[in-house]
Amino acid sequence: MIDIVERGAVRELRLARPPANALSPQLIAALSAALADAAVAAGGAGAAGPPRAERLAGLVLSGAPGMFSAGLDVPHLLTLDRDGIRALWSSFYALLRGIAASPLPVVAAITGHSPAGGAVLALYCDLRVMAEGEFRIGLNEVRVGLPMPPVILAAMRRLVGPRLAERMCVSGALVSPAEAARIGLVDEVAPPERVVERAVAMAAELAALPGAAMAATRRLARADLVAMFDAAGAEMESVLDSWFSAEAQATMRALVERLARKRAAAGG
Amino acid sequence: MIDIVERGAVRELRLARPPANALSPQLIAALSAALADAAVAAGGAGAAGPPRAERLAGLVLSGAPGMFSAGLDVPHLLTLDRDGIRALWSSFYALLRGIAASPLPVVAAITGHSPAGGAVLALYCDLRVMAEGEFRIGLNEVRVGLPMPPVILAAMRRLVGPRLAERMCVSGALVSPAEAARIGLVDEVAPPERVVERAVAMAAELAALPGAAMAATRRLARADLVAMFDAAGAEMESVLDSWFSAEAQATMRALVERLARKRAAAGG
Amino acid sequence: MIDIVERGAVRELRLARPPANALSPQLIAALSAALADAAVAAGGAGAAGPPRAERLAGLVLSGAPGMFSAGLDVPHLLTLDRDGIRALWSSFYALLRGIAASPLPVVAAITGHSPAGGAVLALYCDLRVMAEGEFRIGLNEVRVGLPMPPVILAAMRRLVGPRLAERMCVSGALVSPAEAARIGLVDEVAPPERVVERAVAMAAELAALPGAAMAATRRLARADLVAMFDAAGAEMESVLDSWFSAEAQATMRALVERLARKRAAAGG
Repeated sequence: MIDIVERGAVRELRLARPPANALSPQLIAALSAALADAAVAAGGAGAAGPPRAERLAGLVLSGAPGMFSAGLDVPHLLTLDRDGIRALWSSFYALLRGIAASPLPVVAAITGHSPAGGAVLALYCDLRVMAEGEFRIGLNEVRVGLPMPPVILAAMRRLVGPRLAERMCVSGALVSPAEAARIGLVDEVAPPERVVERAVAMAAELAALPGAAMAATRRLARADLVAMFDAAGAEMESVLDSWFSAEAQATMRALVERLARKRAAAGG
Repeated sequence: MIDIVERGAVRELRLARPPANALSPQLIAALSAALADAAVAAGGAGAAGPPRAERLAGLVLSGAPGMFSAGLDVPHLLTLDRDGIRALWSSFYALLRGIAASPLPVVAAITGHSPAGGAVLALYCDLRVMAEGEFRIGLNEVRVGLPMPPVILAAMRRLVGPRLAERMCVSGALVSPAEAARIGLVDEVAPPERVVERAVAMAAELAALPGAAMAATRRLARADLVAMFDAAGAEMESVLDSWFSAEAQATMRALVERLARKRAAAGG
Repeated sequence: MIDIVERGAVRELRLARPPANALSPQLIAALSAALADAAVAAGGAGAAGPPRAERLAGLVLSGAPGMFSAGLDVPHLLTLDRDGIRALWSSFYALLRGIAASPLPVVAAITGHSPAGGAVLALYCDLRVMAEGEFRIGLNEVRVGLPMPPVILAAMRRLVGPRLAERMCVSGALVSPAEAARIGLVDEVAPPERVVERAVAMAAELAALPGAAMAATRRLARADLVAMFDAAGAEMESVLDSWFSAEAQATMRALVERLARKRAAAGG
């Protein structure tokens, strides 16, 4: 579900769950495991596995051309009960916290569309570079009937400020790469065929800095992002209530049916 | 003092106190009452009054062409004693908190000049669209001898960030609509004859979203704005001390005399 | 070490320690003393010294053409032991707190390069105007092996927001005056020969406002900046540990040797 590509001191973790890199429980688990593996590999000499030419010092999180990730796998999630959804959200939060607290810098190479959970992954990375083109990024949860969870709103605020975080989350806005760069939701845009390369270069640039000073400054500057999860347990039942609300269930089912008809039409 | 115009799911509350929509105790009370009425009307079936074709789901707060509101009615307020000013500021704070906590989204249609208290009203709305042209908006309280009250500085910070909030509040700066949009003090500009229409469209767009998810996200994203008033009682006596300081009284009286002479000259 | 130039109601404090206005213990002490003198002079009639035509009401902190300040005097500091470095950092923090809490507005006239400690001085001023040209400003501490101290990161966040503060501090980025103005690290740019004049005008504009209202609003708007130092004592030993880390010592010594060779080559 994740293709791993070594690029010198930087490891690319490429989401590989066609057609849309939808975040299933399995993909979330695989991504958490890949982060943990990378942390071990970066630990250096003591790490298992074949010796590396260069010590692992940075990560890039990428997707497929045109589609970074469509977010949570709603069709699958609609088949789960409350315990299943609780497990899903808990592991998703654990993944986000893992990205926030990663000992290695993580640069998001947003290779295409990045709505909802796709955008959420990118919020917690160190830096974000997005492919130019007719792609959209944003937190459109409200449009599928889901209130924005507090930790995700807080991460969005950290990037674009309270005014735009309110505006974009309340309206469920999706924006172009250029607009995302203008407001700080992403740091840069690049031609689609260069976005991974650019993300690797950004990660490699961080990896080349004096390591202890860079790591200590990252920990300090990202401590507020990690601390957002301290209260995340308390908000979980409220997130679940919202998920199983009549409005959310009806809106998500309507969305899934619309997508199924579209696919059937395209397939026919 | 307030003209009410129904526009489908959106109700326009149009300040109508010529010549400048100055905020008198009566206008403040009327606006608070109009907000409360709207909340009741939005409550739906159980609400009194004639049936509506569409359920009320959003508000627009507008002013007169060329003049949104000149802010507090200083000439009148200069006739009040400390108890009178305390009552005025308490009801003004209650109005601001009412806008911040409104169950319906409120979009400000800033139809013209919007200094001091006029700008303050807009700070607490969900969104702000301002008329293009030779208008000015800003918190110029310092220029009339009044220190910025803490809750208002905090709301300004939320829109433009700490650096620009400090700079603009300390210097009492008034800026153009274009500059206001550039720094985030307003969200958009529109031609004067389209500003109400645009605000109604923005409110209607919010009203069309899944209602429970949108409302819960608004509550979350605006909780900090509402919470600013938790400590507002404690700052009230200090606001009153500033109001009755020699500097504030002298500066406000000089301003009022200057305006009176200008009006007399224009009238003669 | 500091040239004092009276400019009406504004006093210019011009760093004058060739060649780079590097912050030695002596320069830091002189600057703290100059700030304290200015506060006394602004106190008015009771102050000692010759009578002034105008009451002192604002300060400008400037440097040399092309070089505002190169930051801490690393070659000298490398000769100090832990007690010496503790004294240096304590007095530097006291200076920064003194700028933050200055009863007079302080406008930075960034006359040229302003890396590391040079940029830090400017962060704590009321406003910043920077000379256009091939100059650089930024917090490049990480590039010399020093983690960013928490109070300085917090001040940077206040100007450019958490996203850019993280990005710039982690990568040790130096940026052009135009880029600094775009992101809010400085408020304005001006031609090099006009930067002091412009800073004086900005300080004079503040000085002309109703004094009590302006001062109270400054205190309120800058209270968070001053409060950052409440916990600064607790971070001091960690700052010292970083200073004496193998990485920091090696990186700083390599830098000093590189500079010495460059100077020798230029001198030969």
